[in-house]
Amino acid sequence: MPVITAEDAREIARAALTAHGCDEANAAAVTDTIARAERDGAASHGLFRPPGYIASLQSGKVNGRSRPRVSDRAPAVLHVNGDGGYAPVAHRVLAPPLADAAKAQGVALAAVTNTHHFSALWAEVELLAEQGVAALACVSFKPALPPAGGVKPLYGTNPMAFAWPRPGREPVVFDQASAVMARGEVMIAARDGHALPPGVGIGPDGAPTTDPDEVLKGALLPFGGYKGASIAMMIELLAGPLIGECLSVEAAETDQPDGGPPRGGEFLLALDPGRTRGNGGWAAHAERLFGEIATQEDARLPGEGRAQRRARVAQEGIEIAEDRLASLRALASPD
Amino acid sequence: MPVITAEDAREIARAALTAHGCDEANAAAVTDTIARAERDGAASHGLFRPPGYIASLQSGKVNGRSRPRVSDRAPAVLHVNGDGGYAPVAHRVLAPPLADAAKAQGVALAAVTNTHHFSALWAEVELLAEQGVAALACVSFKPALPPAGGVKPLYGTNPMAFAWPRPGREPVVFDQASAVMARGEVMIAARDGHALPPGVGIGPDGAPTTDPDEVLKGALLPFGGYKGASIAMMIELLAGPLIGECLSVEAAETDQPDGGPPRGGEFLLALDPGRTRGNGGWAAHAERLFGEIATQEDARLPGEGRAQRRARVAQEGIEIAEDRLASLRALASPD
Repeated sequence: MPVITAEDAREIARAALTAHGCDEANAAAVTDTIARAERDGAASHGLFRPPGYIASLQSGKVNGRSRPRVSDRAPAVLHVNGDGGYAPVAHRVLAPPLADAAKAQGVALAAVTNTHHFSALWAEVELLAEQGVAALACVSFKPALPPAGGVKPLYGTNPMAFAWPRPGREPVVFDQASAVMARGEVMIAARDGHALPPGVGIGPDGAPTTDPDEVLKGALLPFGGYKGASIAMMIELLAGPLIGECLSVEAAETDQPDGGPPRGGEFLLALDPGRTRGNGGWAAHAERLFGEIATQEDARLPGEGRAQRRARVAQEGIEIAEDRLASLRALASPD
Repeated sequence: MPVITAEDAREIARAALTAHGCDEANAAAVTDTIARAERDGAASHGLFRPPGYIASLQSGKVNGRSRPRVSDRAPAVLHVNGDGGYAPVAHRVLAPPLADAAKAQGVALAAVTNTHHFSALWAEVELLAEQGVAALACVSFKPALPPAGGVKPLYGTNPMAFAWPRPGREPVVFDQASAVMARGEVMIAARDGHALPPGVGIGPDGAPTTDPDEVLKGALLPFGGYKGASIAMMIELLAGPLIGECLSVEAAETDQPDGGPPRGGEFLLALDPGRTRGNGGWAAHAERLFGEIATQEDARLPGEGRAQRRARVAQEGIEIAEDRLASLRALASPD
């Protein structure tokens, strides 16, 4: 199987996007997210994505030349209109003013609207934690999960990501779907013909199944039963009515099903621990917790698995099937 | 079995607390929480609690005459020093200024410190939602849950509660432990000699068990596996280092194990949807989501079960075992 580097992944994605209508700034933001995913061994958010991105450029759904604009809605609330572009473009514009607002106010919220989000959230909270603030991010998507007690999709897979800054070290980051398994992973299982573990989803009849194609027609299940459904509902409210963007069910009603992400919003919260605590002791205090985790055999910090995969990818490169690589290269060099 | 009303529960709790060192204001705040729990059929947060509360008054751990003080740490951050009293006393002082701060800034955080929290969180977010803001609350406790991959308790059962205001109607509220089952429910199973469902916890040897006594000596498990552990870790950071209060592991180190709650803090976030969204459409927009839930047979809104129990308790009263009622009455009328 061919082996490429994260830099190769970045260049392939950049060339494919610019060949289909992205300007350099928009392509750079998206490919940075794709390359970070491949670097971290997260195939479902890496080079698996460009065909969908390109379909949405070709259909005219996404603006590949977006210029996101930041304005104030309240002293502790920024509004970021993504200009119909990809979410990573908006994030690169909003991260510095959002971190600044959190440092000034103690806590600040960014209401991100009019973007297309099809990437992992961890890159976004990582970006904020690198500026010294803790961050929480949520997005909805298109219906995939039933509400508690129901069987028909209503909530998106609705990921939540959180990052805690560690001065002089990589932040602690988690990023997890409200579904037992992310939809991207179910799509990869369907593509590769693999069965799913039990408990991941139900078919269109509401009965449990391990067939990924049936689950994609039916519903994914939330993690932890009704408690995961509560989290998914909260994310619908935070990333929808609270900020003025659509619910998952509304995204599905208006979306062109062209393989690219629907229009949607994002709830982003930044917290400056120095201001919320009132002193600088927060960093050492959190290390007490992380140190306790390290004393337990086999216990791990969230994000440690990703850090290990990152080191392995740096050493061994990224394996990619020959035909997938060929089709990506064809996207990058259309006649 | 004797049957009492929620008002009886309030009066019994009030008399028991004032007989053991609470002043009227402190007793009123705590008994309001106890009565709300009994009214909603949540026995584990109702009259199950006064013996623990009273033990902590008798040991001198809790200040039954607390006077919580509110100050500013940043434009969008209030600090509430609970003066060593029970958390509900602090909440009654902080809810109005926190809601006001959210309305002024768009989003505001309350760092609650130096309180003893042994009640449900839903009453606290409900209080904020009744003032027109959405609210998120988290507390840690004493180690009960292992970190992802580990087997020894580190995180508390760490509940998270969320409330969404509905003008002219009861807010939508959820309040859920990061554990599969709340510690209070495991304590009740141990008291009543009932086995636990599988998956709730592990014994001190790390092996799964359904014996509540073994689980209380071992560890509870987080809901949804490592994803619930991530939520529990986030809550440790938000209710501890971020606001300047202790981690669960620190609470256990300093706590007098007298049956009452350890000293701890609370992370409270209030969000004004009118400011974060920039217009008044938020309420109708959220109803679209709630309306979709109502169309699915057997699906339910978080808190609906509580509302049904509330109606049943209002009609049928609260059943309470004769010996428990007698011992509560003895606490209320010491010689």
